[in-house]
Amino acid sequence: MSKDNFLPPAGMRDIEPAAAEIRNDVLSAIIANYKKYGFNSVETPCLEKPENLIGKKGGENEKLIFKILKRGEELKETLKNGGLEENDLTDLGLRYDLTVPLARYYARYKDKLPKPFKVFQTGSVWRAERPQKSRYRQFTQCDIDIIGDPTPNCEIELIYVTCKTLAELKIKNFEVRINDRQILKKISRDCGINDDKYGDFLISLDKLDKKSLEDIIEELRKKDFNEEVLSNIRNMFEGLKSGTKNINLLSDDENSDEEYSKAHKSLSSIIDTVKNLLSGINIRFDPTLVRGMDYYTGTIYEVNETNGKVSFGGGGRYNNMVGSFSGQNISACGFSLGFERIIDAFFSTAAGNNENKIKKAALLYSSDKDNYAEIISYCEELRKTYPVVSIFDKQKNISNQLGKLKEIGYTHWGIYNHQATQIAEMAK
Amino acid sequence: MSKDNFLPPAGMRDIEPAAAEIRNDVLSAIIANYKKYGFNSVETPCLEKPENLIGKKGGENEKLIFKILKRGEELKETLKNGGLEENDLTDLGLRYDLTVPLARYYARYKDKLPKPFKVFQTGSVWRAERPQKSRYRQFTQCDIDIIGDPTPNCEIELIYVTCKTLAELKIKNFEVRINDRQILKKISRDCGINDDKYGDFLISLDKLDKKSLEDIIEELRKKDFNEEVLSNIRNMFEGLKSGTKNINLLSDDENSDEEYSKAHKSLSSIIDTVKNLLSGINIRFDPTLVRGMDYYTGTIYEVNETNGKVSFGGGGRYNNMVGSFSGQNISACGFSLGFERIIDAFFSTAAGNNENKIKKAALLYSSDKDNYAEIISYCEELRKTYPVVSIFDKQKNISNQLGKLKEIGYTHWGIYNHQATQIAEMAK
Repeated sequence: MSKDNFLPPAGMRDIEPAAAEIRNDVLSAIIANYKKYGFNSVETPCLEKPENLIGKKGGENEKLIFKILKRGEELKETLKNGGLEENDLTDLGLRYDLTVPLARYYARYKDKLPKPFKVFQTGSVWRAERPQKSRYRQFTQCDIDIIGDPTPNCEIELIYVTCKTLAELKIKNFEVRINDRQILKKISRDCGINDDKYGDFLISLDKLDKKSLEDIIEELRKKDFNEEVLSNIRNMFEGLKSGTKNINLLSDDENSDEEYSKAHKSLSSIIDTVKNLLSGINIRFDPTLVRGMDYYTGTIYEVNETNGKVSFGGGGRYNNMVGSFSGQNISACGFSLGFERIIDAFFSTAAGNNENKIKKAALLYSSDKDNYAEIISYCEELRKTYPVVSIFDKQKNISNQLGKLKEIGYTHWGIYNHQATQIAEMAK
Repeated sequence: MSKDNFLPPAGMRDIEPAAAEIRNDVLSAIIANYKKYGFNSVETPCLEKPENLIGKKGGENEKLIFKILKRGEELKETLKNGGLEENDLTDLGLRYDLTVPLARYYARYKDKLPKPFKVFQTGSVWRAERPQKSRYRQFTQCDIDIIGDPTPNCEIELIYVTCKTLAELKIKNFEVRINDRQILKKISRDCGINDDKYGDFLISLDKLDKKSLEDIIEELRKKDFNEEVLSNIRNMFEGLKSGTKNINLLSDDENSDEEYSKAHKSLSSIIDTVKNLLSGINIRFDPTLVRGMDYYTGTIYEVNETNGKVSFGGGGRYNNMVGSFSGQNISACGFSLGFERIIDAFFSTAAGNNENKIKKAALLYSSDKDNYAEIISYCEELRKTYPVVSIFDKQKNISNQLGKLKEIGYTHWGIYNHQATQIAEMAK
């Protein structure tokens, strides 16, 4: 059998012991924090009915869904009837986020849940994206959501808990950028963009973290934006960047409507309150923040490395999606942490570098002369000093054996000698 | 939209907050125990290449695999070429256990892993079985395995750690039943069963927990077992049941070969050593224990409710499967806990019945007069006494609100009144 057969599927990963242990510790810390701050958990299956996954994020995203082939008689029937369309052949799909399943869950249980419902979920999601560095086809998300509260208290609490959680994980040097879809709508109108081109404008603007303003303008030119509008866009974003235009200067003119005024007031209050609650937090209005998802209706935010490109997570208000299941208008707001990015950041901290790790001892024995039951009993004693103790039969090449044990996180070792066993630290 | 659309797929479950919290606590306790006893964790993706899933457990099990439809150009190409077979249409499958992915993982990394490799895995697995009570299509498994040690020390340690883990979870009244495939082979020969009918014999014998001995004999009669053999089988199992034949009486006659003698010696030593290590443990030889999986080669065991039908888990030695990936002969032995059964048992214990639960307080406020930032700060103080504090805006119908909060696990509540807030226990 070829070596390639031992690999996991493209874009997916095996996690080795030392990393698996850190991932479990970090996930436990995130969950403990979410619980402490008053969020309750739910679990939903990894598979959903296709009709619940499709169309919640627009047609383009449907291609990302891993779909499950029908089975048995149902598959035979479909093939016999010449059903050769994807949606005829499949009856389930792997979830691509935790928000859609939550919306379904809420629709099912809303009558018995408290209002607002403060909920966290952690779990794997799958996206059939082209595999590339640091982009995986299976990855873990950690979400907090507040359903049923229309006030900016949601945004304040979600940002607060997320920042507290990152701090708990010893991640420093992060900033929160915040914007509102209603402000983007006003910017669009102020620049003279027709409402029917607003979507195109957002798609291009979303790339401003990777491309220059001139590249974006060139892209919009190809999308038939006229020169006057393009010039307005250039002036607007140069002004916003240099500070001659800011969130307050945007607030008063003939393009302001009630929705916008509300968004402007709410955004100012969120920024001020978060600054007040968390001294030293870097939170700022960023009019170029778009966030890709179709479903956002108001505030949007992202937390990323200060002066860096790594995003630790993001979220926003999505007032229509929960309601799209139950046919009611339901407020909802969420913040999703990107677990994989956090793990990468965590590995660069002291905790990730094996400092302050718990003592993990490997006890070696001779299978030809030692009594295994005695060793097991002895380990129970040893665990009072070393919280983790593993038993291994001593190999001929001890230095090779110790090297492999160190690699998977053992900090101490010893050779079993009844009550006289000596435990030593692993060599550096 | 119909109410049915809010349901998860058939055979899968939404887990509500109170249950989700207990599941997380129980899983954390299992993981902490596995770690303490010296097992290391690995993670593998939920999806595997079909060729790694198919054929590892025999053809019948292939029907249980949820398979992923090919996507994009590859799917178009397949359909154009008239590829209407299941295996043409799919390129991935959801894992149905954690053992097959572990065997692949070991083949990939064996050169850098310590010998033996003591490993635990927890995670979801999927089986497209007909949904029925307490049988789910997505469920959680918790496995410990020892790879690369051919001695019965593996069995001793796996049974020891599993019993310790059940005790840690306050599950009492369990027993361990143990057998060996080599002993089953000897029983089969002693009854005069031809080697080519040994598989049929095992399949029928495996049903002895649900059917009577006479039903089994009737089933074997239909499979063309002759009357002399059937009479031998009846005498053998009646003798084993009444104790006139037992593990020792089976040991000495002309049908004993080296494999059998080894198995007999090893089984006696495992039973004696485990009894020695764990006072009060109920472990016994059970010649009717078969365990369904094809891949077992030696010892097999199961842990279940004493005098009950609920199985908490099982496992055994599977010496060929790990090797089937790497083409080498590699010893392996495992014990898998059935998480869903353990959760059911846990719910019937004190811990599951909300006793000794951590204090979880709901703080109600008036959204029209209270300042949210102040409340958030106040909660930080409150968490010194109540480890979990959630904020909710006070509803008109407080008793209804408190009822819903109690339902999802809140033990205490209060109405925010600055530094004079009173926190009370929830009414019984």
